[in-house]
Parts: sequence; structure tokens; C-alpha cells
Amino acid sequence: MTSRQADLFIPIIPTFTLSVFRFPLTLMTRFPRPAGLPEVDPLDQTLRAELQHIIDTRTKPPGSLGRLEALARQMGLIQRSTHPTVARPAMIVFAGDHGIAAEGVSPYPQAVTAQMVANFLAGGAAINALSRVAGLELEVVNAGIATPLPSAQGLVDIPVARGTRNFAHEPAMTRAEALAALQAGAARVRHHAALGTNVIGFGEMGIANTSSAACLMSRLCSVPIDECVGRGTGLDNAGLARKRNVLSAALAHHAQTQAPLDVLATFGGFEIAMMAGAYLAAAEARMTILVDGFIATSALLVADAFSPDVREYCVFAHASNEAGHRRMLDHFGAQPLLSLDMRLGEGTGAALAVPLLRAATAFVNEMASFDSAGVADRDA
Amino acid sequence: MTSRQADLFIPIIPTFTLSVFRFPLTLMTRFPRPAGLPEVDPLDQTLRAELQHIIDTRTKPPGSLGRLEALARQMGLIQRSTHPTVARPAMIVFAGDHGIAAEGVSPYPQAVTAQMVANFLAGGAAINALSRVAGLELEVVNAGIATPLPSAQGLVDIPVARGTRNFAHEPAMTRAEALAALQAGAARVRHHAALGTNVIGFGEMGIANTSSAACLMSRLCSVPIDECVGRGTGLDNAGLARKRNVLSAALAHHAQTQAPLDVLATFGGFEIAMMAGAYLAAAEARMTILVDGFIATSALLVADAFSPDVREYCVFAHASNEAGHRRMLDHFGAQPLLSLDMRLGEGTGAALAVPLLRAATAFVNEMASFDSAGVADRDA
Repeated sequence: MTSRQADLFIPIIPTFTLSVFRFPLTLMTRFPRPAGLPEVDPLDQTLRAELQHIIDTRTKPPGSLGRLEALARQMGLIQRSTHPTVARPAMIVFAGDHGIAAEGVSPYPQAVTAQMVANFLAGGAAINALSRVAGLELEVVNAGIATPLPSAQGLVDIPVARGTRNFAHEPAMTRAEALAALQAGAARVRHHAALGTNVIGFGEMGIANTSSAACLMSRLCSVPIDECVGRGTGLDNAGLARKRNVLSAALAHHAQTQAPLDVLATFGGFEIAMMAGAYLAAAEARMTILVDGFIATSALLVADAFSPDVREYCVFAHASNEAGHRRMLDHFGAQPLLSLDMRLGEGTGAALAVPLLRAATAFVNEMASFDSAGVADRDA
Repeated sequence: MTSRQADLFIPIIPTFTLSVFRFPLTLMTRFPRPAGLPEVDPLDQTLRAELQHIIDTRTKPPGSLGRLEALARQMGLIQRSTHPTVARPAMIVFAGDHGIAAEGVSPYPQAVTAQMVANFLAGGAAINALSRVAGLELEVVNAGIATPLPSAQGLVDIPVARGTRNFAHEPAMTRAEALAALQAGAARVRHHAALGTNVIGFGEMGIANTSSAACLMSRLCSVPIDECVGRGTGLDNAGLARKRNVLSAALAHHAQTQAPLDVLATFGGFEIAMMAGAYLAAAEARMTILVDGFIATSALLVADAFSPDVREYCVFAHASNEAGHRRMLDHFGAQPLLSLDMRLGEGTGAALAVPLLRAATAFVNEMASFDSAGVADRDA
């Protein structure tokens, strides 16, 4: 711990971007990146001008497809192709339990995590319905659920442990557990990459995981905890006040914890840690990544702390109604595609954005140009 | 004209709604509704409580699917079913030319209307690509194009005339032409109703039709023309100023025109009039109607002036970047589903909303309840 504390005295290095929201490079320089994580390349800009020319010569007023045009350009750059596609899109839902649930920070009992996983496997949850509509391959991962699960077909059963410890009193997991979860999440993405997936979204299930996400946000973004805490699945005012007090005390208890890996280990969940590793592996595999809501974005904060280039591969799918999510999106300078007053998690917001990616690729690949269609351009 | 002018002295009758945006009933009482238009029933509320119970007992925190829940409820009420569906969704694109184009209000030549229709029929326009992605049946209607069209398979060729007259000098069409267009649009919808369509969207193509839409908006909503005029397909500042002057003078020239049918005949286009009739027929057939952008919403203003209940069947798909569209949406008290900086028309915004309707019906029909899935509710 001594060497990390000494690092705090290194002078702050300015970031190389104009965005005020850019994650400071100082975090990376102060804290060495854990070895063995997926390597994320900066987004290759080679095809930018060619893609823009194609977009501008489709039979429509220039710019008139708005954000679909930016999506098409981003996907083309990620795939290094002037004909970007949506191929075998996949959704991985990571589920895990949280020791902090013992502090009464959720209105639902911890057993609901396992019950909802059984519901996912039976096809009866929101993410099942929305994945079917979106044509998504759905995978459910037991990242570390506390309650024993009935054996069920289709579950990827790779728990790190039976739930995390209670971070009100001690770190939620060890560094070794955090690293194992990061690697396990990366491995799931590599599985899908091998099958041809080039668009991926991540969802989560875990009673009390908005508490974990709020603390990750507060520490990694240096935002006061009150701006990070929301009602989660539906706390009343008394419950919200209790959650604030519990998390504020926990952050104070772990005030010395600053390095991203330690922040993850201390406040994270196994599902969040796996998702952070999954983001890195998806960017490494040059996938377009659909970012869901509050908890999914908290996992991206972790991945971004390790490899800030990961955000160039991300499409921010929606703005959650969970308090704090807008502030997280501001951190990334992100304008979400959808804003539908949702706050469910499971990857549901990410699933709803898939058709917009399909539309973006369709207009680039299928529309005629002014020349080919014999349509007079505005200068004719 | 004398009897209508005398009507102006009838005292204003208060509307029966609290919304400040509600279209005043006075318009309907002052001006008799044209005979023979489709009859729109108020939305049947019988199933509201039952639908809400189903929505609230799906395995998710109550309200957590946000606007998808409201969509599912609306579609259930429209279809009078607790199992709403998206059946044979259709998109009708109405195309017509505008005499006002002679005033230089668009940067594109009038011939582009016919060229783009040829592009629609060849499958190369944005609405073709987006309809394919959305699984929409696409129909293209010649409502009144000025340029001769090459004969082409798939065109519904029912022009009222070869473009409207120039409303800078005279009404764009006669009352008889306006009525014929309203009926023709209604007939197209009935065709699709007979084939089983229960979700429909309308698009348009017509060089200079933002000028038509802006004047309809100004007169029907009593909004100053400067708040209604935008850049359309991309006017520069000088072009925008010219368009404002032309339309301001035209509105002054037709200052006595107040009855909705006369407003439509004076400032409308054949594609807009057909679309207005199509809205009424779609509501009569209890379809869920996807409302596209600026021009499509101006046609809804006309339909709404005849039958305000039509709006209960509408889903406002997106906010266009065309200046004035937000103000139109305010008129309806509408919060659009999507806001993607688009300003293309053709029905493209409506097409993008179809997957959200599918998602809304999917969650209601396919999700388990807390009871059926054995998931503990929050009170457990």
C-alpha cells in the first residue's frame, strides 16, 4: 500500500483532449495497469473520409439522417470497413450477489437474484422478450450468486464465489478475485468473437448492485456519493436515506482505496467485474459495444480506467431513470440514443438500440447514391 | 363565405380538457365537418385497469420499462386486447408536387420529387432501407406529381392533378380536390386494413412541402409564421429569409381562410391531404399510427381539426430537427419516442419506432408474472 500512497504526490499530468469529461490520464500514470488484461487499440481512423463521402452521397440531404450517420461512421471505423454490418449480435447478462445487501439497501430480498436467473433461463424476463425482438443471442452467466441455483440448461456457470463480501466492513473481493472476474468476462466475449459476433451488449442482475455502482462512480469520477445514489428497484424516501448513509460510511471506511483495480475489488460485484473485462475484450476484438444503464456504465468506468480507448468502441444506448446515470454519461461526454424513462437493467436499454445499428448499416449499404439513382443534387 | 365570417362572432366555447395544447373545440363548432370522412371513435378505455394489472405484475420493478409500458397500454386499448400485437405493419409514402416551389423556397429542383419516387420504386432510398430493417410493407403513392413518371411496377398511381397551384397567388387546390385527396388517402389505409395491418406509418416526398406544412401549422395553430419556417432540405440564410417572406405574404393574401378544409385546400399539398385522410381512416380502423416528422405532423393537424380523437391512436415517433416540429409536438402535448437529429421525411422517423412497438407488445405477451416465475415481489 505504501507505494500507491506515495504515488499521490506525483504532479498531475494534463490530459491530451479538449473534453472536460475525459478521464484524467493521471489515473493510469499513477496506478500501473494490471498485467494480462485485453489490449485495446485506439480507433483506427483510416477510413473516416471514405466513409463520410459514402454517407454524404446517399440520396438524402446531407446530414439529414442525423445520429444514424454518426453510428454508421463509428461502426465502419470499428470494423475497418466501408460496409459495416450487424453480425450475430449478442447479449451477455452477468449475475452476481452483493454482501452489501445485508445493509438493507434494496427493497427486494437477495434470493431474487437467483430467482431472476431462473426466469432468464426459462425465457420469461424482460431481457428475453427484448432480445427476441432485437434478434440477439442471449447468454446468462452466473458470475457469483449467493443462493444455490437449480441446475438449468443454458447457464454459463462460472461463479468466482458465492456473492461478494459486505463492503460496509471489508473489501467486496480480493484483488485476485477481481482479476479472475475480469478475465472470465473477457473469455466470454472471446467465445462470441470466435462465433462471428461483431455487436455486443452487456446486462446484469444482482440485488443491491446499484449500491456497488454508486460507490464505483463516486470514487472513480470523484463525485459526491449523494449525486450517485438513486432509488434502484424502487426504494422509498426512508430507504433512500438509509442507502445514502450506508454508502457514505463505506466510502469513508475505504478512503485510501484509489487505484482502479482496488476500487473494483473493494466496491464492485462479480457481475460488474466480469462486465468490465468483457468491455475490454469486446474493444480488443473490434466489436461495437452497446452500453446499457447505470450498473453497466459503472462497469465501463472501471474498464475505461484501465484502457480509455475502450469508449471509442461504445454506443451509449439509453439514459436510465436511475439518478446518477446522466452524470455518468456526462463523464463520457455521451449523448445516449434513447431516453425512454427505463430503469430495469438486464441489458434492456442496450437491446432496444440494436435496430438503430441495423438501420445505420442498412442506409450505408443499401441506399443509392445521387449518381446511381439519377437524382439531381441540390447544385444541379 | 358570408356565413363563415358571421361565425367569427360566436362566443368562444371552452374546451373540455385541461391541456393548454388541446385543439380548441371552437374550430369544430365554427366550421362544419366535411361529410363522408372516416368516423373516429374516442379511444375505448374498457381494458385500462386490466392492462395495467398485467403490466404491473410482469417480473420487473413496477414502472421500470418506462415508456414501453405506456405504449403497451395504448396499443392494448386501441386493439381492445390484453395481448396487443404488431401485425403486418405498413408504411405508405405519399408523393406530390407543390406550385409554391416556383417561388424558390427549396434548394432542390421540382424534378427531384419524381426522381425520388423512382428511387423509392427501385429500392434505393432511405425509407426502403429502414422499412426493410423494420419489417414494414412499403407502398408508394403518386398523390399528384408534376413531372411525368416512368411507368414502374409497384406504384399506386392515383394523382389528383399534376401538382398543386402556387398558393402565393391562388389556393393550392379546390375544395373538391382536397376532398378527393382525403378520400383517396383513406382508401389506401382501408386496403391495408383488409390485409390485416394494425400498425401503420405515413411518409411523404414533395419538393417545397415544408412550405406547405409551415403555413398549415401557422394557420391551424395560430402560431406566427417565423416560428413555423425552417431550412427544409437545407436552405442557407438567404434562402430561409426568402422562404419566410414568401410564406408570410401568402398567409396575408389568404387571411380570410380559416375553416380547416379551406386551410388544407389553400396551403396543402396532395400528399398532405391524402395523409390527413389516411390518419382518419387508420384511427377508424383502430390501427396504431406512427407519426413521422414536420410534414407528417402538419397533416395530422388537419386530421385533428376534423376529428380530435385521432390523436389517441397516434404514437409520436420522433422529433425532427426541422424548426417548428417541437412546437407542433407541443400542440399535441406529445413527447416523441426518438430524438436523433433527423430531418429527412419519407417516414424514416416513423420506421425507426416500429421495433419499440414490437418490444412493448413482446414484454406484455412474453414475460412471466412474479407468480408464474416464482420470483419474490418486493413485499415478500
